[in-house]
Parts: sequence; structure tokens; C-alpha cells
Amino acid sequence: MTKTSDTFISENPLTIDVWRGNMVESRHQVHAVVTDADGGLLRQWGTIDDPVYLRSAIKPVQALPLIESGAADAFSVSEKELSLACASHTGEDIHVEAVTAWLDRIGLSVNDLECGAHWPSYRPAERALAAKGQEPTAANNNCSGKHTGFLTTSVHLGENPKGYINLDHPVQKRIQKILEDFTDLDLSNAPMGIDGCSIPTFGVPLKNAAMAIARFANPEKLGADRAAACLRIQNAIAAYPEMIAGSDRLCTALNGSAKGTVIAKVGAEGVYLAALPTLGLGIAMKTADGNTRGVEAALGSLLDHFGLMTDEMKAAMSEFTNPVLENWNKFKVGKIETHLEGSGL
Amino acid sequence: MTKTSDTFISENPLTIDVWRGNMVESRHQVHAVVTDADGGLLRQWGTIDDPVYLRSAIKPVQALPLIESGAADAFSVSEKELSLACASHTGEDIHVEAVTAWLDRIGLSVNDLECGAHWPSYRPAERALAAKGQEPTAANNNCSGKHTGFLTTSVHLGENPKGYINLDHPVQKRIQKILEDFTDLDLSNAPMGIDGCSIPTFGVPLKNAAMAIARFANPEKLGADRAAACLRIQNAIAAYPEMIAGSDRLCTALNGSAKGTVIAKVGAEGVYLAALPTLGLGIAMKTADGNTRGVEAALGSLLDHFGLMTDEMKAAMSEFTNPVLENWNKFKVGKIETHLEGSGL
Repeated sequence: MTKTSDTFISENPLTIDVWRGNMVESRHQVHAVVTDADGGLLRQWGTIDDPVYLRSAIKPVQALPLIESGAADAFSVSEKELSLACASHTGEDIHVEAVTAWLDRIGLSVNDLECGAHWPSYRPAERALAAKGQEPTAANNNCSGKHTGFLTTSVHLGENPKGYINLDHPVQKRIQKILEDFTDLDLSNAPMGIDGCSIPTFGVPLKNAAMAIARFANPEKLGADRAAACLRIQNAIAAYPEMIAGSDRLCTALNGSAKGTVIAKVGAEGVYLAALPTLGLGIAMKTADGNTRGVEAALGSLLDHFGLMTDEMKAAMSEFTNPVLENWNKFKVGKIETHLEGSGL
Repeated sequence: MTKTSDTFISENPLTIDVWRGNMVESRHQVHAVVTDADGGLLRQWGTIDDPVYLRSAIKPVQALPLIESGAADAFSVSEKELSLACASHTGEDIHVEAVTAWLDRIGLSVNDLECGAHWPSYRPAERALAAKGQEPTAANNNCSGKHTGFLTTSVHLGENPKGYINLDHPVQKRIQKILEDFTDLDLSNAPMGIDGCSIPTFGVPLKNAAMAIARFANPEKLGADRAAACLRIQNAIAAYPEMIAGSDRLCTALNGSAKGTVIAKVGAEGVYLAALPTLGLGIAMKTADGNTRGVEAALGSLLDHFGLMTDEMKAAMSEFTNPVLENWNKFKVGKIETHLEGSGL
């Protein structure tokens, strides 16, 4: 463990303890790193050089071509829709209705989405759909907003949008290029997997991911147009936090209460990226085991460490960042605690 | 790492790799131990002296008072109901109907269950309930069979069953005594938590848990009555595997295909206990991070190591023990692999 004036480096990952009764029942390890927009290292816990699939955590950056191509303006994409374009949403009516209307405006329909269909992740929404005797469509897919953004860009640029999920389609090539710009990496030989919604996801070292989201937070060196696009997306997410996730979700609680001081996005398998515009920093985190509860608790502690957790944020986020575990009778049976161990922070 | 003729000891836990594309995305660590009924150590991975909450994995042992008290015979409890008494079920109609009929036979109703209500864990069952405009009751609680067994014993013994979930109620005192018999521990000062269904759960070192389930597997030294009760429960679970879990669950696939050579039960937070009657052994496992997918994959590998995985079992269990990860478009995007690392097994 090393500590210099401005930098804290721990070889150990953050430890998140899940308590039940008077004993720790389970434990998560979260790798985490904080950098500035030049990649300057401020904080490190655990391994930050190994590649991590960014999954949906990088959606705010993946949404940039929608603005930079001129598509957002050409199709009068609203702030609400821009937030939805960055979403892993819960498949509630507000999301489905917005996606459907947006698709209609660009002359396409839910049948053009290539993300696949799944039941809403918010279970009351799933039950409401079942109660109406309906099946889910691709509009309920948590990524349907992002995919609608992809389609909007592609239509605007006069491409054939079909197959837009594939690596060699112009939509994905633009995404890859932007990710390369933000991470300073050549991703052509990076580890690659297919995401839940069928688009490619690249393996990026955690420190590069932090730099990417720090650049999104503090885009002043990216040129005026890109900087404006980043700020427009930040503002959209802060203004419409219910569109980026939904009921009972940390992304909505956090982006709604942070008032633009934090723009954060979860990804599957325990990834979180957080842009800190007022500090010009980026946080990248990954639970080693892939569990989301670990990274959610750890993110709250890190934001608190940077003095960003207002009372309003603490109240809005405590269900995720300092959860009290309840059982089916609503007895309080446990809690989750994060340790910035030996950090001296 | 130490290896003697019959014993394999690794200080490292089992490693379970979750692959996506050409990279390991997440990793689980599973502590595991195999002993005989006297506690003789055969295999060990990781830490086996630290206490672990056994949660629902110990339900087959918790069901013994139902038989030993004479309650099962007095109330003509069927084999199917005995399996249900050991269940963490999916809340499907077969479970709810069986619990309701059984409660009626002992002169009680779903209102006497103290486990709390929750929606069925099997989502098609949840949707079917919602489609009928119904809400879940305590009969849908995954533990409702166990609780009905508790009530049956209590009614048979002429107790007031009210408060049967509390540590000082005769129902829980009997459970504690049996656990002490099987683990050779005094549990009065053991770590204790409250389980999802509101009964006490004790912290038991993993090696003692393995011995307990080995005794259940090979009960010959426990006296004729207890041995008979253990065999009766084993037979019930093997005969009615759909009652101990339900659709899309490893416990049902495993207990149904193993034909009595393995009697296994999952517990929350990544616990699994497996009785191996033909070998007279017990396996106890816990994913450090609490994730179930880790321990399910590891259990398959351990059973295979002991030569117990028939082709029928492999086919029935592969979805859990060697899962191919699919996305919403049913693309194969990853896999899960267990490493009995450096084991020489």
C-alpha cells in the first residue's frame, strides 16, 4: 500500500461485507480507480490494468454519435429521449411509450430493434403486462432506448440500419472509434464479447475506463462540438433520471439527487462508471464476482469520500449504498458495509 | 497445498470463471469440504473452519422432528409432503396446493404460517398469479412447506404453535438440538442470524456442516429411529424432486436424476449441502460472495470428481453446472467453468 500526497494506491480491492445477525455472511471485492481526463491516477483499489467489459456502463459515451452526427437535431430528439438513449431501463410504461413514439418519428417500429425482447426487470411492470395478457416486446428490453438512438443515427446518415448490432456495421464502427478516442486504445485486438442486447462489448483496462468517463465529465480538451455533446448528455441524464433506469434503481436515485455533480451508469456484472463534472474526474469500478450490490455500496462510499454525497443524495441512495437487509416479514436481518480499508482517506 | 493418499487439502478456494467472448468477465470463489460421518476430512478447498450460515441448505435435517415426533405418521404426511417440508420451492401451483391441503388436514390455514408472503420465484408462476388478479400469500413463500412441517409437529405435540419461528419456541429448540447432534457443536453461543423466512439460522463451520450432511447420508450410527427418519427423507426427496424446488432449478434436476445417490439442497447466499449416501460422505460448499451460480457449477464438478455424474445427471444438470450463457437474442455469448485448481484429483 502506497500513499503520496495526492494519490492513494492499494493493491487490495475494496471490501464490501454483507452482514446477517452478528456475522459477515458474504463478501464482495471491488476493483476501483479514479483518474482525471489525462489519465492521471488519483485513487486505486485492486487491479486496474486488467481488461473489463464495460457493458452498459459506457452508454453515455455510446450515445455521442447520436448528437455529433446531427441526428438528434434532425429528428428533434428531446432531452428525455437523450437520457433514454443512455439507459438500462426497467421496461416500465414511461420507457416503452417513449421508445415507441421515438421510433415512429424516425419512420421505424419496434420490429426494427435488434436487441431481443425480455420481460421488464421491474417486477410490478412485468406483472402489469401479464395482467393485461400481453407479452413483452423489444421495447421492454432494457437497452431499447440505446438501440433507438443507434437507429436514429443510422437513418439520419442514410445507411441501411439492418444489422446495426454487428461489429462491421457503421453504427458499431462509430461506437468503436469513439471508445478508442476516449480510452486512448486500439480496440481492434481488445478482448471482445457480445452484450446482452447483442452489440459488441470491448475489454478495456479499468484505468482507461476511468479516463474515458473523466473525459466525458471534463470534455474541454475534446473540441467544442464533442464537449457540447458531452454536456448535453450530462444535462439530459440529470434532468430525466427516471429515463436512464426506473423504479427502485440506484442510477435513477443517484442521477436524480446529484444535480449534475455526478453522472453515473451501471453495467452488467458489477460495473459502474461515474463522471464527476465538478471535479473533472472519472470513477471506474467492477465487482470481481459480477454482483451489483457490491459495486453499488462501494460507489456510495467513494462519492462520500470525495465530498459529493449531499444529504439529499444520501437519503435517495441509502437503499443501495447503505442497505438494511429485510426478510419477507420486513424484519431487519442484516446490512452491507464498505471498507476503504487501510486507506487513510 | 497438501496431498496425502486419501486426502486433498488446498488453501485456495475453488475458482469458478464466468466467460464472455474471449475473456473471463467475473470470477467466484467457493469454499468446499468433503467429510465422512465421523468428520474425517477427504477434500478441502479454501477455508473450512469459519462459520457459515447454512440457511435453507440444512432443511432436510430440520425436517427430522416431523418424523421423529410421530407427527408425520399421526397426520399421514405423504412422501410428497415430506419432500415439500425440505423445500425452497418456486411457489408454483403444485407447491401452493400441496401446502394448502396439508395445512387443512392439521386444522390450520395459510394464516398460521409465519414465514411472510412473497411472489413466486418462478417468474411464469408470478405472471400467472398476476394475470388472475391475485396477490401472493405465505403459501407462495419458498419456505411454506418447511413451516407447514413445523406446524404439524407442534400441533401433534399439543403445543401452541403461535410464535413457532422464535428461538425460544419448542419448534426451534428441537431444531437447534438436532443441529447440535449432527454438528457436534454447542450452538448456544454460535453466530446467529434471522433467515429470510424469519427462523434463526446458525453459523456453523463448513467442516461441521459437511459432517452433519454426511451423517444424514450415512445415519447408521445415529440409532435405528433416526437412521430410519433420515432414509425416509432421502427417499421422499428422490421420489418427489419437483417438490423440493420446482421449474428451472438445480435441486429438482439433481435430486430427480441422481436416483438417490446424491441428496442435495441449496441455501441462500451460495450455500450447498450434498449427502452422498452410496459413499457415506457429505459435501458442504459456500460461494464467498454469496452467488448461487458459482456454487452450482462447482457442485457439478465435485460430483463428477466422485464419479457420481451419470449421463442422465449431466443432461439434467448441465444448464446449471456447465451453463452456456445466452443473451436476449439467444446468442451464445459465454460459459461458466470450474477449476479444481492444482488439485491432481
